[in-house]
Amino acid sequence: MSEVIFPFKITGYGSYLPPEIQTSKELSEFIGKSEEWIISRTGVIERRISDIDVDQMGALAARDAIGNKDIPDLIINASGVPKQTIPDTSVFIQRELGFDGIPSFSVHSTCLSFITALHVASNFLQTDLYEKILIVSSDRGTRGRNFNEPESAALLGDAAAAVYLEKSDNQKSGMISYNMQTFPNGAELTEVRGGGTNLHPQDKKTEHADNLFSMNGPRVYRMARQKVYDLIKKDLSDNNLDVNNIDLVIPHQASGMAVKAYSKYGGFDKNRVIDIIDKTGNCVAASIPLALNIAQQKNKFKNGDILYFVGTGAGLSIASCIIKV
Amino acid sequence: MSEVIFPFKITGYGSYLPPEIQTSKELSEFIGKSEEWIISRTGVIERRISDIDVDQMGALAARDAIGNKDIPDLIINASGVPKQTIPDTSVFIQRELGFDGIPSFSVHSTCLSFITALHVASNFLQTDLYEKILIVSSDRGTRGRNFNEPESAALLGDAAAAVYLEKSDNQKSGMISYNMQTFPNGAELTEVRGGGTNLHPQDKKTEHADNLFSMNGPRVYRMARQKVYDLIKKDLSDNNLDVNNIDLVIPHQASGMAVKAYSKYGGFDKNRVIDIIDKTGNCVAASIPLALNIAQQKNKFKNGDILYFVGTGAGLSIASCIIKV
Repeated sequence: MSEVIFPFKITGYGSYLPPEIQTSKELSEFIGKSEEWIISRTGVIERRISDIDVDQMGALAARDAIGNKDIPDLIINASGVPKQTIPDTSVFIQRELGFDGIPSFSVHSTCLSFITALHVASNFLQTDLYEKILIVSSDRGTRGRNFNEPESAALLGDAAAAVYLEKSDNQKSGMISYNMQTFPNGAELTEVRGGGTNLHPQDKKTEHADNLFSMNGPRVYRMARQKVYDLIKKDLSDNNLDVNNIDLVIPHQASGMAVKAYSKYGGFDKNRVIDIIDKTGNCVAASIPLALNIAQQKNKFKNGDILYFVGTGAGLSIASCIIKV
Repeated sequence: MSEVIFPFKITGYGSYLPPEIQTSKELSEFIGKSEEWIISRTGVIERRISDIDVDQMGALAARDAIGNKDIPDLIINASGVPKQTIPDTSVFIQRELGFDGIPSFSVHSTCLSFITALHVASNFLQTDLYEKILIVSSDRGTRGRNFNEPESAALLGDAAAAVYLEKSDNQKSGMISYNMQTFPNGAELTEVRGGGTNLHPQDKKTEHADNLFSMNGPRVYRMARQKVYDLIKKDLSDNNLDVNNIDLVIPHQASGMAVKAYSKYGGFDKNRVIDIIDKTGNCVAASIPLALNIAQQKNKFKNGDILYFVGTGAGLSIASCIIKV
């Protein structure tokens, strides 16, 4: 049976869902597609729209996760899109939290940033340097919607989520396995082409659409399906697990079809796959920790359960992580 | 005496300096300041200007570092400014290298990204997951120069640098200590305010200057000097070292004055502090690994030597790392 290789405990969960709801019916007039078209293509019935920025959203989720516990020793921002180019968003989250002097930096692998950061943090917690680490994912994808690209525009929603991890001296909880692969021939399938040195905002050839989110969802799905399927098989077999040993699958909420594929093709029982996309949309890097938070609020798992984080991200990357909570 | 806590070996060094040189005399006409003014304020006599983008620059440095060795198990992009918002730059560096399926992501703490990534990689190399990790820092700061802000515009230069790290089974080389602190009350001293959700390119209130680099160098220097001084004292005392045990100081090349402060106030012998800013400018996150590469090319250190990476970054953050090579 699978063993914990990096002990840690998740001792705090937090999330922030903006109060403003935009239904697919309301969105339909902006993107020239019917409510039915949107729901059938994306699985999203409604999504949240934030009027506060990612640092404030992230800090609200973080406060929830910190609760009455100590100030963390490290803050990792694990979001898809930053507040601004420089400094990285972890600084602004720390500022909103009112802390000072806490080391902080960002990990960026778009929608997989949370899984990557969890791997980084779980490694860090094996040493004496840090005892408690805060990971925050906060994304405001609706700021970058391109209404001329109705499918990707309809997918995005805003949310933030955070976890507070602590060192553990036993192997009752922690990370069992981690896996990631990046396939650059899928780089152009999910992009915000602007915002950096390539199509710099001051560059005359940069067009308005370059600064907006662009995704070819069907091609991402076709490219990723077999790769994710192979990843799941490898994760299970490498750890002597079968689908029934996984108590809960917490996938990136890429699209309705992508989430449903974990039960339809992945072999997991539908009731064990967290599916929140109808109410939240694809919240970029916040999707996975938000799904974790919602599962925790609904008591969908208990101590000792095996959780499986898995998903795809711009790159194209795929990643997965098995933890025992 | 200090002990290696995270064994690893640096088995490859690589760098890319664009061939085009812009002297401070040439720059003076664009920013309305004399050559003498520029050199006295920044210490930069000339800087490089790249006509290829950060991924190509990074891949050229990476190829150098990889040499005839195996394809790495992991690529970490540790740059200050991305090629584009999504996907993260590691994907594009991997594409330029012609690899496929190698996990890759970015670590972002602006000018300190290399130190942060070195810490992440050195933790990863203690486990069985990765045996060889490529870290690439590539920055093209001249793309974001604001000629109305002559001091910061004169500081920036373009460069890329990379290291190839391998697992080690003994403590003859590796990381001795790592330290970082972030002070968000300095967040506004070094910024590119645009490029994210805050002053989004589609936002009407976003001004041209928001997308350019802005730094109040003298205020950064004043805020950082005592903090960095205290960090050095703590690093030395925690590891039972004195200044003479450090064979080489490899500081972030923030400004001529900042680099000289390590000998003037930090107590290190001037000949042991790598100072390349006159010829390269401040190359953002590439500054530290470029200085390391130049030191290696000039045989400034040998196996068993103690190197000290230290610097400041937007945030304001300070970080340091002692390694034995």
